[in-house]
Amino acid sequence: MKYFDFDEIKYEGTNSKNPLSFKEYNPKELILGKTMEEHLRFSMSWWHTLSSFGADMFGEGTQNRPWISEDPITEAKNKVDAGFEFMQKLGIKYFCFHDRDLIKEGNNLKETNERLDIITDYIKEKMDQTGIECLWGTANLFNNKRFMNGASTSPNADVYAYSAAQVKKAIEITKKLNGKNYVFWGGREGYDTLLNTDVSLEQNNFAYFLKMAKDYAIKIGFKGQFLIEPKPKEPTKHQYDFDVQSVYGFLLKYNLIDYFKVNIEANHATLACHSFQHELNMARINGILGSIDANQGDYLLGWDTDQFPTNIYDATLAMYEVLKNGGIAPGGLNFDAKVRRSSSDLNDLAIAYIAGMDTFAKGLKIASKLIIDKVFDNVIEKRYASYNEGIGKLIKEKKIDFEGLEEYAYNLDEIKNESGHQEMLEAILNQYIFNK
Amino acid sequence: MKYFDFDEIKYEGTNSKNPLSFKEYNPKELILGKTMEEHLRFSMSWWHTLSSFGADMFGEGTQNRPWISEDPITEAKNKVDAGFEFMQKLGIKYFCFHDRDLIKEGNNLKETNERLDIITDYIKEKMDQTGIECLWGTANLFNNKRFMNGASTSPNADVYAYSAAQVKKAIEITKKLNGKNYVFWGGREGYDTLLNTDVSLEQNNFAYFLKMAKDYAIKIGFKGQFLIEPKPKEPTKHQYDFDVQSVYGFLLKYNLIDYFKVNIEANHATLACHSFQHELNMARINGILGSIDANQGDYLLGWDTDQFPTNIYDATLAMYEVLKNGGIAPGGLNFDAKVRRSSSDLNDLAIAYIAGMDTFAKGLKIASKLIIDKVFDNVIEKRYASYNEGIGKLIKEKKIDFEGLEEYAYNLDEIKNESGHQEMLEAILNQYIFNK
Amino acid sequence: MKYFDFDEIKYEGTNSKNPLSFKEYNPKELILGKTMEEHLRFSMSWWHTLSSFGADMFGEGTQNRPWISEDPITEAKNKVDAGFEFMQKLGIKYFCFHDRDLIKEGNNLKETNERLDIITDYIKEKMDQTGIECLWGTANLFNNKRFMNGASTSPNADVYAYSAAQVKKAIEITKKLNGKNYVFWGGREGYDTLLNTDVSLEQNNFAYFLKMAKDYAIKIGFKGQFLIEPKPKEPTKHQYDFDVQSVYGFLLKYNLIDYFKVNIEANHATLACHSFQHELNMARINGILGSIDANQGDYLLGWDTDQFPTNIYDATLAMYEVLKNGGIAPGGLNFDAKVRRSSSDLNDLAIAYIAGMDTFAKGLKIASKLIIDKVFDNVIEKRYASYNEGIGKLIKEKKIDFEGLEEYAYNLDEIKNESGHQEMLEAILNQYIFNK
Amino acid sequence: MKYFDFDEIKYEGTNSKNPLSFKEYNPKELILGKTMEEHLRFSMSWWHTLSSFGADMFGEGTQNRPWISEDPITEAKNKVDAGFEFMQKLGIKYFCFHDRDLIKEGNNLKETNERLDIITDYIKEKMDQTGIECLWGTANLFNNKRFMNGASTSPNADVYAYSAAQVKKAIEITKKLNGKNYVFWGGREGYDTLLNTDVSLEQNNFAYFLKMAKDYAIKIGFKGQFLIEPKPKEPTKHQYDFDVQSVYGFLLKYNLIDYFKVNIEANHATLACHSFQHELNMARINGILGSIDANQGDYLLGWDTDQFPTNIYDATLAMYEVLKNGGIAPGGLNFDAKVRRSSSDLNDLAIAYIAGMDTFAKGLKIASKLIIDKVFDNVIEKRYASYNEGIGKLIKEKKIDFEGLEEYAYNLDEIKNESGHQEMLEAILNQYIFNK
Repeated sequence: MKYFDFDEIKYEGTNSKNPLSFKEYNPKELILGKTMEEHLRFSMSWWHTLSSFGADMFGEGTQNRPWISEDPITEAKNKVDAGFEFMQKLGIKYFCFHDRDLIKEGNNLKETNERLDIITDYIKEKMDQTGIECLWGTANLFNNKRFMNGASTSPNADVYAYSAAQVKKAIEITKKLNGKNYVFWGGREGYDTLLNTDVSLEQNNFAYFLKMAKDYAIKIGFKGQFLIEPKPKEPTKHQYDFDVQSVYGFLLKYNLIDYFKVNIEANHATLACHSFQHELNMARINGILGSIDANQGDYLLGWDTDQFPTNIYDATLAMYEVLKNGGIAPGGLNFDAKVRRSSSDLNDLAIAYIAGMDTFAKGLKIASKLIIDKVFDNVIEKRYASYNEGIGKLIKEKKIDFEGLEEYAYNLDEIKNESGHQEMLEAILNQYIFNK
Repeated sequence: MKYFDFDEIKYEGTNSKNPLSFKEYNPKELILGKTMEEHLRFSMSWWHTLSSFGADMFGEGTQNRPWISEDPITEAKNKVDAGFEFMQKLGIKYFCFHDRDLIKEGNNLKETNERLDIITDYIKEKMDQTGIECLWGTANLFNNKRFMNGASTSPNADVYAYSAAQVKKAIEITKKLNGKNYVFWGGREGYDTLLNTDVSLEQNNFAYFLKMAKDYAIKIGFKGQFLIEPKPKEPTKHQYDFDVQSVYGFLLKYNLIDYFKVNIEANHATLACHSFQHELNMARINGILGSIDANQGDYLLGWDTDQFPTNIYDATLAMYEVLKNGGIAPGGLNFDAKVRRSSSDLNDLAIAYIAGMDTFAKGLKIASKLIIDKVFDNVIEKRYASYNEGIGKLIKEKKIDFEGLEEYAYNLDEIKNESGHQEMLEAILNQYIFNK
Repeated sequence: MKYFDFDEIKYEGTNSKNPLSFKEYNPKELILGKTMEEHLRFSMSWWHTLSSFGADMFGEGTQNRPWISEDPITEAKNKVDAGFEFMQKLGIKYFCFHDRDLIKEGNNLKETNERLDIITDYIKEKMDQTGIECLWGTANLFNNKRFMNGASTSPNADVYAYSAAQVKKAIEITKKLNGKNYVFWGGREGYDTLLNTDVSLEQNNFAYFLKMAKDYAIKIGFKGQFLIEPKPKEPTKHQYDFDVQSVYGFLLKYNLIDYFKVNIEANHATLACHSFQHELNMARINGILGSIDANQGDYLLGWDTDQFPTNIYDATLAMYEVLKNGGIAPGGLNFDAKVRRSSSDLNDLAIAYIAGMDTFAKGLKIASKLIIDKVFDNVIEKRYASYNEGIGKLIKEKKIDFEGLEEYAYNLDEIKNESGHQEMLEAILNQYIFNK
Repeated sequence: MKYFDFDEIKYEGTNSKNPLSFKEYNPKELILGKTMEEHLRFSMSWWHTLSSFGADMFGEGTQNRPWISEDPITEAKNKVDAGFEFMQKLGIKYFCFHDRDLIKEGNNLKETNERLDIITDYIKEKMDQTGIECLWGTANLFNNKRFMNGASTSPNADVYAYSAAQVKKAIEITKKLNGKNYVFWGGREGYDTLLNTDVSLEQNNFAYFLKMAKDYAIKIGFKGQFLIEPKPKEPTKHQYDFDVQSVYGFLLKYNLIDYFKVNIEANHATLACHSFQHELNMARINGILGSIDANQGDYLLGWDTDQFPTNIYDATLAMYEVLKNGGIAPGGLNFDAKVRRSSSDLNDLAIAYIAGMDTFAKGLKIASKLIIDKVFDNVIEKRYASYNEGIGKLIKEKKIDFEGLEEYAYNLDEIKNESGHQEMLEAILNQYIFNK
């Protein structure tokens, strides 16, 4: 059975009027020596694409999906069929999943895990047939009411144990599907009120949970990257993995820094009052940029809107950071994005993915030109040149102290600073966006 | 000459109609075995109290202060006289300063430093006469145009050297005044746009700057605490010391964690999308709670309003964290707060300080009752009790792994979670506020 | 059958340790010549109290309620029983409802309306038995997927017609239950993107809808107030009824101002970047303060958290506006609030209501003292005194023009402004909160 | 004397590497039958361009301008020379001013007004020589400390009188300079705290002030448009002219709607939690779109950053609204924007204007294509087609009532809604941005 009534989506160039075509994304086009496909490593999100239907806090679902079934195993298999058909038609080579997206929970953990075995067998078959791969897996430790007060930060040790068992299985199936990464997003790992919370105990428990996870992964030979996904809030009032810098400090404190990187989501960045580029940059310069959840939020709304990314500024500067990072592999660009509630047609799904893929493809092209032309590199090199000689060199090489610097400063005439030329740089970025 | 036309402010009790009296702050009253004065360690901020006059981005100053003079040295001494008179009359035992608050810059660094010597001699004399002490000193590395692109993160090595010389002197005068702490606030240490910024180089330079500072302090025998004051933005678009967790990670990364704590400002917390209590709690549980800038912001305004603190919820929960920390000494509660632009009378200054001191005194009284009655302690003890035995104890003591936890989880019946009772806890907090 | 295992909640005074008692709310206590009960007119919200169970966007319900049933009519009646038991035990005299809270939709509009007839018969009986009254009714025009693109602002005329039929019935049942008010909240009346929206047409249609509604109400003799409830966003990106001033302009534009007032919700105020008091004040001075949804949001979270109100500052200043308004009747204080997701015990419901009722009772007591003592009245009278004589009187009475004012201004010496004394006023407010 | 060391800025096309050239703005190029110049009506702001130097709340000015002088009249004339040189070289045909930008206040109102006469004589001469015109004038009623508590909403009648005299003169000089508009921005017209404010009296006084202003303008034959500029906050906590809808309601209430339109500033829109397009759209459909302050804010910063506009999405959608409005004349696009504090070179001024002009020129080109191709018009026409026949037509023509609609609704089958296709529309907008 086919779920989508369109054929393979093709690159038709920038002026195509066909909504079901790529205008910018040309998978085999070479950019800086690699194909677009290799650079971008697009991934389908199982949850938003196959398991959500437009419900919000004030209204029921609006999107009928033909793969829904009363029987959980039938529905799960239908979703696999629909998902692989979708990925093949869009030329998407990776997918991401939560354990509970794949198949509904059974009556107890054993039954749930048996269901996971069944459905991952079925997925594995499809992967072999299509060459599509698993970018990352994760465990849903937030939906079920047992996680009401947290999972690995729950005040209830039984919940902690249950969470460990669930993550253990999720790592096992991610390994079985040869996942390139495994992600931890702690939607309930934080607090709603400090009045009843022992933050210190919760963070210690959380850190030990992560340590056991990586120990187990090593033990069973899982080779994927471990990633933490920062988010500041929602559903929890305060999440411990607030942003990149919080996570970085946490990893250092608990000696986990060698085993974990971060998965940056654009909308989580802005909820934490940072730009998307900021979070990518912070991760990159600290050596922990692992993967990307490519979506966008709405700066005028205070919750996670998970929109498909269409802003070219954000996509360009994100790809700039990715290129500076030497690429994002073994991570990728996962569309953790959902169609708007009123985008109720099945084809809106494909159109939304195309919008996101085209935006990032265009962003890649622009970013590569900015790098080839050393647009910002030249500015930065010149701007910081004083650290390559004289007193600056001594500073950079840590060969001077306060007394030496004071002596130097006493002999300075009025200091002349160079303009930062922000407007000029923004205008040049616009030129690259308008014309490349 | 006297600047203020009121006498010593006295405690007159909760029903006094005299605006120039304390209603809650009774310095010698014992709370948990210490006087209020010892707990609260209130401090006057030199800048907002003596050196600012109600100007904002859209308007000139509105507050005539009788200590202003054309001659910089006369003005500086007038300010000392006014400040000490003010502190004595209010019973404030500490003050905080930026170097440039004390006296205006001279024509060059040498002259500026000579002026600092003169004025600190004068201050020292007053300290000896009054017993008033210096809570902390700092260097103003943001006002002068030379810091346009940052100070210790400037792309210009000359600015870096100048900043080092300035901080060296500021540490020296803080030592001379027997300052209990020395603070680093990096108002220009960050970026306005990533398009021209090498964040990695800037952060390395910043860390080396801090290292040199502590090395120099050790060398000259300065015994005060070193504190970093987090703020997320303003004036800079992004400041590196975004919040407690960012600073904590930075200190760990650069091996500075043994030498630096943090100075938490309420309004900076909220600009970083955190509650005041959150930042205090994060600092406390990581062992880096150093001192407090006691003020408050306006949640509906997006800039640093530096209002005098009058919210009893914030003051109570702040003092709760302070008591849990075993006190704030050698730090204190510095009123980094300014009277509103239209509070143009000289007496508004005193009334505003009284408002802040009464609010924190009331907060201290309530917090101490909450601690004596173990209101939240009992809740938390009960809530996390499952970690004191059985599987929970194994988790807490790190004596189990994922396999052990899975085995345990397989045998669990449906997990029953306890209510978090947030509304009840908020109601009890109100009872304590209304009645104690 | 009884649903709640506690007896009637009694006033036990400020020091009671019984969570199931009132500490401040003493229904028959006289304040300014009226009982607390008459002032406060508390109301139970059918939806949050009886029909929601702790689900959020990331998780299922956590709150088991014993009135749930597979059969819609049984469940609806159970809810009536539970609701009236709850109101009686808490001494709440009013309730508010959406049509769809009362009973689930049937297979078509006719069946749905028949169900409404059945359940409102049942409610009416209970009302007669208990003396409990209906504060307001409304129609749920947002949950069903048919309202995906709006109800009275839908681009689909069939949806508009359906909405009219639904509101017609909702007005009829509100009349049947002798509702004191009828509310319009336009959760889907706005836009998600301007790219596909004809705002002008939608607003014209919306205004005509309101006109038809009031015409029909007049025709059938419904005597209740019509109220619009402003909210700026969520679920819709932009809602047309953004805030009081937007609604006021809309009502003037479409000549509806004589027939509609506003229902102010605290959390909606803050989402619109206003304080709760601001919205109440704007409504009051424009003569359109109709009723209140008493809850509170979290300034650090960007969505409608609908928390039970426990902030004494907000409650005091809200009651201050209510008293200045000459009371809120025929409106009331409806608890449009839900217990936190992790407040999972049935008793948390009662405790949360008690917390809200006590907070507003305390607020009423403080506000009444502020009014009796003319604390702010005296300040304001003195502050604006210049408009009671001379040039000010001419201005206020509109008896002067620019030329007259210029002539006067030319002869002015330097103008002396009085301090606004904000800190003093905040300190006095604290005195009243701490001691009354 | 020449102040700028560059020649007339020329259009050099999209690939020019010359920062001092236009890449998109080609003044005489025809778009929809008018030249770009006629469409865009760019204007220089006297304040940010000639009178501000990079100071912020935490630092002194960074930008040396060669026109500064100790003598106020010399400085004022220098600024005229510099301003006209700048406008001529950039091909800007309009300027905007506050009275106090033109020349510093004298010792009293008379002297100040005499200075205004001198400097406006000088400006008028320049205007005659160059053909440059005045887009609008306004009065600075916020900087001087006399406006501490407001101007036309001051509690002090003397301040009110003074403000009237100042505005009277400002209207006279705007008339003298043949200004196309006169603007009211009420930076201090609002409140800092409700505890000391009589909002009702202040708004009545404010309305009467506006009435007197328009009466006087009519009397002296000033033909320009009167505009109110909404802003929600800053410097004041709450400004009465919060946003377009607030202003619209205010104008209706006080019968001023026939005499006033609005001047929309992008950064003020976002501070009010609206998009720039939203405010333009609301003004347009209510017939009060008067003029535009073209700048942009930073969504992650909570104050008025007044950046030069470089975001192509905002510029495109703004120009779309302008075209839909039939143009912006007699208003224009005023660059109420300042170079960043660290853009310290004189040439950064020109580069920033070029950035803004190119962005809006590109936006105009894209918007005109969207209109020619009826991209959104066709979508909207189809989306609302149900209102052109049958029941929808009856609704639109107001020929049906609730009973008629109910009858119709009873006979409806399940309603089918059309998708809103938001992602598709965003993708098409991107196509137009990338390729046109």
